[in-house]
Amino acid sequence: MQIKNYIRDIQDFPKEGILFKDITPLLNDPIAREESLKILLDSLKGQKIDKVVGAESRGFFFGMLLADKLNAGFVPVRKPKKLPFKTISASYDLEYGTDSLEMHIDAIKKGDRVLIHDDVLATGGTAKALCDLVNELGGEIVQCNFLMELSFLNGREKINENPIFAAITY
Amino acid sequence: MQIKNYIRDIQDFPKEGILFKDITPLLNDPIAREESLKILLDSLKGQKIDKVVGAESRGFFFGMLLADKLNAGFVPVRKPKKLPFKTISASYDLEYGTDSLEMHIDAIKKGDRVLIHDDVLATGGTAKALCDLVNELGGEIVQCNFLMELSFLNGREKINENPIFAAITY
Repeated sequence: MQIKNYIRDIQDFPKEGILFKDITPLLNDPIAREESLKILLDSLKGQKIDKVVGAESRGFFFGMLLADKLNAGFVPVRKPKKLPFKTISASYDLEYGTDSLEMHIDAIKKGDRVLIHDDVLATGGTAKALCDLVNELGGEIVQCNFLMELSFLNGREKINENPIFAAITY
Repeated sequence: MQIKNYIRDIQDFPKEGILFKDITPLLNDPIAREESLKILLDSLKGQKIDKVVGAESRGFFFGMLLADKLNAGFVPVRKPKKLPFKTISASYDLEYGTDSLEMHIDAIKKGDRVLIHDDVLATGGTAKALCDLVNELGGEIVQCNFLMELSFLNGREKINENPIFAAITY
C-alpha cells in the first residue's frame, strides 16, 4: 500500500500558488490510516514515551492515535486563548508577523520522555515552537514526527538538534 | 475509576460566569482516557459503524480513537474555510448571530452508518449542525455520542430524533 495515494493535492489552497496536501482521504480510510500509524510507530523502535504533544488541529489526529498505542498521555498545544488553565507560550514567525502556541503548564513534568507530532513539517515554525514549549517544561524530546515533510522548505533545519521522522517526504 | 475526577472545573472561561469543563487532564492520563473510550464503545453494543464524524477541534480527540477501534473512516467537520476540498455547510445559532460548520462532500456516502462524536453536548447547536451535514449526504446516524453532557442546557432536545449517549452527565 502506498499511503501517498491517500493524500490529495489541492491547488491554490489556502491561497493562490500553494499546493495543499489534503490528508482527509487518508483519515477516511481505516487501512491507509492504520498503515500510516504503523510507520510512525515503527520509527520509534519501542522507545518508551510518557507524553505525546500534538499541535492544533491536524496534529490531534495521529497525535491521539500515537498516544493511545504508546499508552502515553496526550497534550494538546493550541492557538492562543483556547486552553483554559495556566499556560506557557511560544511564538513563531509567519510570512508577515508572528503567531504563537500555548501549552498547559502542568502538561509535562521535568524528565518526561516526549514525542512531538504534527501532520506536516513545512517551514518548521510550528515545530520549533512545539520544541520550545516542551523544553521550557523540562521534557526530553525523544522524536519530532510528522505524517508528511515538505523537504523543499527546509523546516528540519529549525529543529535539527532533535531526532526527526516523517512517514512521507515530498 | 471515576473519569469525572479527570475533568477540571475552570471558573469564568472562556468568559465570566461560565464554568468550563477542562478535559485535558483526562487526555493526559492514559488509564482515564482508555476507560472513557471503553464507556463510549460499550454504548454502541457492537453495532457496525462505517464513519465517525468529529467536530473541530475537541471532537477530534475521541473521534479519532473511536474510528480506530471501530475500524471506521474518520471525517473531520471544521470551521468555515478550513477544509480544502468541496464542502457542504450547516449553520447554527450562537448567543449573538450564527456560525457554521463544513464537511467535505465526498466524506460520507449514502447509506453509510455514521457515529457522530463531540466532546460536549451543551446547547446542541453544534450537534444539530453535525446531524444536518450527515443527513444531507444521506448517512444513517447510528448514534450521537459525547464525552460529557451538560444536561441543564437541554441540548438533546435539538437532536432527539437520534440515539444519544454521553459518558458523563452534569
